[in-house]
Amino acid sequence: MVRNIIITAGGTSERIDDVRMISNFSSGRLGLAVARAFLEAGAMKIEKIYYLCDRNTNAPTDDRVEVIRVMGVQGLLEALEQLLTTKKIDAVIHAMAVSDYTVKEVTTLSAIRSGGEPGGDSRENSGGDSGENSGGDSGKPSSGEIPAEGKISSEIDDLVIVLKRTPKVIGEIKKLQEDTILVGFKLLTGVKQEVLIETGHKLLQKNRCSMVLANDLTEITGEKHVGYLIAPDGTYEKLSTKKQIAEAIVRKTRALLAEMEGMVR
Amino acid sequence: MVRNIIITAGGTSERIDDVRMISNFSSGRLGLAVARAFLEAGAMKIEKIYYLCDRNTNAPTDDRVEVIRVMGVQGLLEALEQLLTTKKIDAVIHAMAVSDYTVKEVTTLSAIRSGGEPGGDSRENSGGDSGENSGGDSGKPSSGEIPAEGKISSEIDDLVIVLKRTPKVIGEIKKLQEDTILVGFKLLTGVKQEVLIETGHKLLQKNRCSMVLANDLTEITGEKHVGYLIAPDGTYEKLSTKKQIAEAIVRKTRALLAEMEGMVR
Repeated sequence: MVRNIIITAGGTSERIDDVRMISNFSSGRLGLAVARAFLEAGAMKIEKIYYLCDRNTNAPTDDRVEVIRVMGVQGLLEALEQLLTTKKIDAVIHAMAVSDYTVKEVTTLSAIRSGGEPGGDSRENSGGDSGENSGGDSGKPSSGEIPAEGKISSEIDDLVIVLKRTPKVIGEIKKLQEDTILVGFKLLTGVKQEVLIETGHKLLQKNRCSMVLANDLTEITGEKHVGYLIAPDGTYEKLSTKKQIAEAIVRKTRALLAEMEGMVR
Repeated sequence: MVRNIIITAGGTSERIDDVRMISNFSSGRLGLAVARAFLEAGAMKIEKIYYLCDRNTNAPTDDRVEVIRVMGVQGLLEALEQLLTTKKIDAVIHAMAVSDYTVKEVTTLSAIRSGGEPGGDSRENSGGDSGENSGGDSGKPSSGEIPAEGKISSEIDDLVIVLKRTPKVIGEIKKLQEDTILVGFKLLTGVKQEVLIETGHKLLQKNRCSMVLANDLTEITGEKHVGYLIAPDGTYEKLSTKKQIAEAIVRKTRALLAEMEGMVR
């Protein structure tokens, strides 16, 4: 039986203006390792891997991989919705480091303190004209207003970015396709192992994942990558490299798919 | 005569917390094209290209290229200072899209409105514990405070990033090494050609550049890349691709170096 897989990988980028964004340090290498492990798994015939990542993430090159570049959390949600409502997807490996926040408004400290609400649709493009080659000044004289389009002036002394929380993407996946196998990821930083396992297991239960890979930023350096692959019953397997993690995810996904197929027969 | 060149390329990233940053959409491909043009220029013997870029920018691989990864505007300044005060550098091609802003403080709208100043050295690491795999939650219960280290909670409803302006890197280069050839870059967005030329020429005069490449974001798509290489007398050459731009910069740099050498003799 041929399989269709979605892998989300790397970080998301939330647009501030035409040239600036908020992004994260995610390298996307774990997602890449998972893609390779699926492509090299001989016992499993992959028809297509839909590889969702942002414009700067390295993606695998293979005839069976369709790379879909998404912009921000909203772009990721739209791409997932499109795929999961039109195609049978056997598994979703949601390794992307999704931004918790997106940009609500760009304003100034003084505007916030005076209770004003600059911005909104009436804003004019009023980019500054600074001496630095920092990309996309409009060249027009700065009026101190914040542009909704174009590039924000480089000459504002108290610029402020107001953020808002993004929707939880992982919670949407099983709603969009009930029977898909969902692999979640949880990255914490500097916590005890039991907290890591517990938090990962909560994520699994809340979002009906088939497994969750929990890892800690302080245990990831170059090739070394400690991860705990947690099962629905709370048991886990400890892994030590990206390759090991990727192979374990593929092995367990394959076993689950074989099991499901057996039940259907 | 062998030559030492500095090329700065791609965007800069300003750290928000352990996992998030403000960066820009610069691809670094123009810097890469300039590096290749220097390496392939037969008439000019390159001893070393110091290639300064941030951690995610693609850098050339060549024995004569030393890639120096810098973090943020501060990291770029430090690397330039170190190189320009210890080595004879024949030319600095400053193609990097340097951020106009860096992060001053991460706080909340309510704290700003109440006139409070949360943050500073007394801040505790109090990352949240959300359901999304967005990288590096501390797993500890959120207290609503903003961490100076670690990762900011993903559960703050009115998170705000306060920015401050960065120093103008281009203005430091000739101060650090008087005789180096400085090539500046100016990117505007959606302006008339005469505004572009005029702004580029002002940048040249202000920072004592030997030439400035002025370009407009709206005239850059894929391989097409319109650029105006402006001379100190205000004349300019129009170029249409990254390759053309790179070759023109190398040709003019080589001519200037030959001229300077002739004067010394």
